Amino acid sequence: MAATGFHELLLAVAPRGQVLLSLFIVLVAAKLAAELFERLRQPAVVGEIIAGVIIGPAVLNVVQPTDVLEALAEVGVIFLLFTVGLETRPSDIFRVGGRATLVAVLGVVVPFIGGWGLLSLWRGHSWLEAVFLGAAMVATSVGITVRVLSGMGLIAAKASRVILTAAVIDDVIGLLVLAVASSLATGRVNYFHLGLLAALAIGFSVLVVAFGSRVVGRVRGRIGSLRIDHSLLIFALVLCFGLAALASVIGIAGIVGAFLAGVALSEATEGTGLHHQSQALTEFTTPFFLATIGMKLNLTVFSTSEVLLLSVAVIILAILTKLVGCGLGAARMGRRRAVQVGVGMIPRGEVGIVVAQIGIGMSAISDAVYGVVLTMVVITTIAAPPLIKLAFASEKRPEKVPEYTERLEEIG
Amino acid sequence: MAATGFHELLLAVAPRGQVLLSLFIVLVAAKLAAELFERLRQPAVVGEIIAGVIIGPAVLNVVQPTDVLEALAEVGVIFLLFTVGLETRPSDIFRVGGRATLVAVLGVVVPFIGGWGLLSLWRGHSWLEAVFLGAAMVATSVGITVRVLSGMGLIAAKASRVILTAAVIDDVIGLLVLAVASSLATGRVNYFHLGLLAALAIGFSVLVVAFGSRVVGRVRGRIGSLRIDHSLLIFALVLCFGLAALASVIGIAGIVGAFLAGVALSEATEGTGLHHQSQALTEFTTPFFLATIGMKLNLTVFSTSEVLLLSVAVIILAILTKLVGCGLGAARMGRRRAVQVGVGMIPRGEVGIVVAQIGIGMSAISDAVYGVVLTMVVITTIAAPPLIKLAFASEKRPEKVPEYTERLEEIG
Repeated sequence: MAATGFHELLLAVAPRGQVLLSLFIVLVAAKLAAELFERLRQPAVVGEIIAGVIIGPAVLNVVQPTDVLEALAEVGVIFLLFTVGLETRPSDIFRVGGRATLVAVLGVVVPFIGGWGLLSLWRGHSWLEAVFLGAAMVATSVGITVRVLSGMGLIAAKASRVILTAAVIDDVIGLLVLAVASSLATGRVNYFHLGLLAALAIGFSVLVVAFGSRVVGRVRGRIGSLRIDHSLLIFALVLCFGLAALASVIGIAGIVGAFLAGVALSEATEGTGLHHQSQALTEFTTPFFLATIGMKLNLTVFSTSEVLLLSVAVIILAILTKLVGCGLGAARMGRRRAVQVGVGMIPRGEVGIVVAQIGIGMSAISDAVYGVVLTMVVITTIAAPPLIKLAFASEKRPEKVPEYTERLEEIG
Repeated sequence: MAATGFHELLLAVAPRGQVLLSLFIVLVAAKLAAELFERLRQPAVVGEIIAGVIIGPAVLNVVQPTDVLEALAEVGVIFLLFTVGLETRPSDIFRVGGRATLVAVLGVVVPFIGGWGLLSLWRGHSWLEAVFLGAAMVATSVGITVRVLSGMGLIAAKASRVILTAAVIDDVIGLLVLAVASSLATGRVNYFHLGLLAALAIGFSVLVVAFGSRVVGRVRGRIGSLRIDHSLLIFALVLCFGLAALASVIGIAGIVGAFLAGVALSEATEGTGLHHQSQALTEFTTPFFLATIGMKLNLTVFSTSEVLLLSVAVIILAILTKLVGCGLGAARMGRRRAVQVGVGMIPRGEVGIVVAQIGIGMSAISDAVYGVVLTMVVITTIAAPPLIKLAFASEKRPEKVPEYTERLEEIG
């Protein structure tokens, strides 16, 4: 009894010790796996996701995906896209706008038809369930691709620009597909609301890209005269989370807002330390983003051979339809670049899970299909990085930018 | 109905939009208040706490202290102490060790007697309740002081070193006081467990300060040969959260572990970019730490004049007993420095709240006393920064270190 009392006392004294311990375990596991994968010449990103699978509920169950980890994961992917946005000028987006739109549209249509068609033919599923699976296969999550391309120093490559821009457009179209699917589930399609959603999402994205940079350039001078320390970093963080929250409220993914905030800041903050500072934030939070994806893998979904078979079919279809759809959209860039764009758009992310959650909430899909979508999201995310590395392997790399640490060491 | 459906759809599509929105609101409110307070020549820290009071449940109630905000707050104060640790060499700690121990011991004894004595004399409270109030008044939370002194560029001043070291020792003693109080509440004092706790806490702190720097120095070379990017930052983060978690598991505050991790790293990472990178992490997370303190202020505790009166008495006593106790401990440093040390130790933090929570969990204290402790923690935290600024006003400031942004602009 006394020993129990002692243990209880420790737990009571350290109510948040559990949080610190889980942060520590995730950091260590993710980074050890990243190092191991780098040495095996495999993508570090995959190592960090698999670390999440291993420490998560699927295998060891030492860490569970709590609210806190989810929040750090969310912040992590936001910083990831924000940092990439900082390296992207508005003109980079406009230059590839037309091609990216085609990539995004075909990258929505083909996977939707694939998912919908598959479940329509599979016995035992309603047409509504088929529509939801189609909708869940639509949205690309560009965070993984960005992480791999950043690591390779290829974020400025032409195919990378097309992928980034297409991912933003893809997200807007995905929102509309989801809205239509939800309308069908409730039995009424309100064209006015759909139009409003579309106008809001498109208007927001276009306005930020077109005018954000100019607005930031104008207030940039006043930021320097603020009394608080690190005012530029603070301003950037406020813009990042402001646009991310606004994007979320409109209904598109928060990461789109964060990316656009980075784009708006890119020209006005060139040559400042902002980029290095946001890299530190990205490095700290990204392991939580990656490991949390792995923690969501639920191996019990494979308990019946029917669901296992469906999962395999959905995963293959998810990979092929994006590859073909987006590849076709980029066909005029030549075969090599079309493949690069296609594989870059393969990873699905949170939006696919959100679609499935809404489907479950509306009783439109079964638990089995929900599990299949979850598995599809995790597996497409793990499968993409090796394909991306392969597709971009022959790409000319820019000269390696010296790491920040080294630069400061140089200037002492 | 249709309008409701639209709103529901938005909420469903943006399940984490609420999180992003709350992060945005906290950031903006805290930093606007910081800027306003800087212009009024008041401590920015107080502005950020008051921003938390205003947006929190006490006034506007637009943001509630959620798990996510609490976690970011915890991470924030961890980075704050870690960054300060990076600026503190082990020898800085040993040099002031004796004096700091005296400051810590008197800074525990005097406030404990004050809190215990007050409630013993006040009618209607048990002796056990008095013991718990005494225990809740013991632990200094050095985060606020550190933030103020960092902002003034005075973290390397002699009084600052004494405050930092005393706060670490204070935390270890506070743990033991809490353990005794809890033992009294259960009616049995186990001297073996108390001794074990003491040995663990002291052993951990002394070992890290004495040998941490040497161990880090030895592995430093190997870190550079890792394949992952930003390996030094990653290593530092792992050490920071590892020691913070270990400290929590032992029963002392996580921030003590983070501070000691910084100390262990300080010599081996001098001249690298680590310090600037950890500053970026601190700048992002500190507003959540400060605003969350403010959100905890519960004004309804003042609904009866009896509780209001008790609160005022406890707050005055909390300020005076630390000032006198710690000031006496530092008396041989001269009157000016003794006052500096005294005011630097005034802010109480989470540990005080934890003590009160344990007291409530053991039915040892009433809701009213819990509310009083919470108020005491918030008010001592708000009251300390102006006093610290005043006490350190005549201190010679080091030449202003150019901000990181400017340095990078110089090297282009």
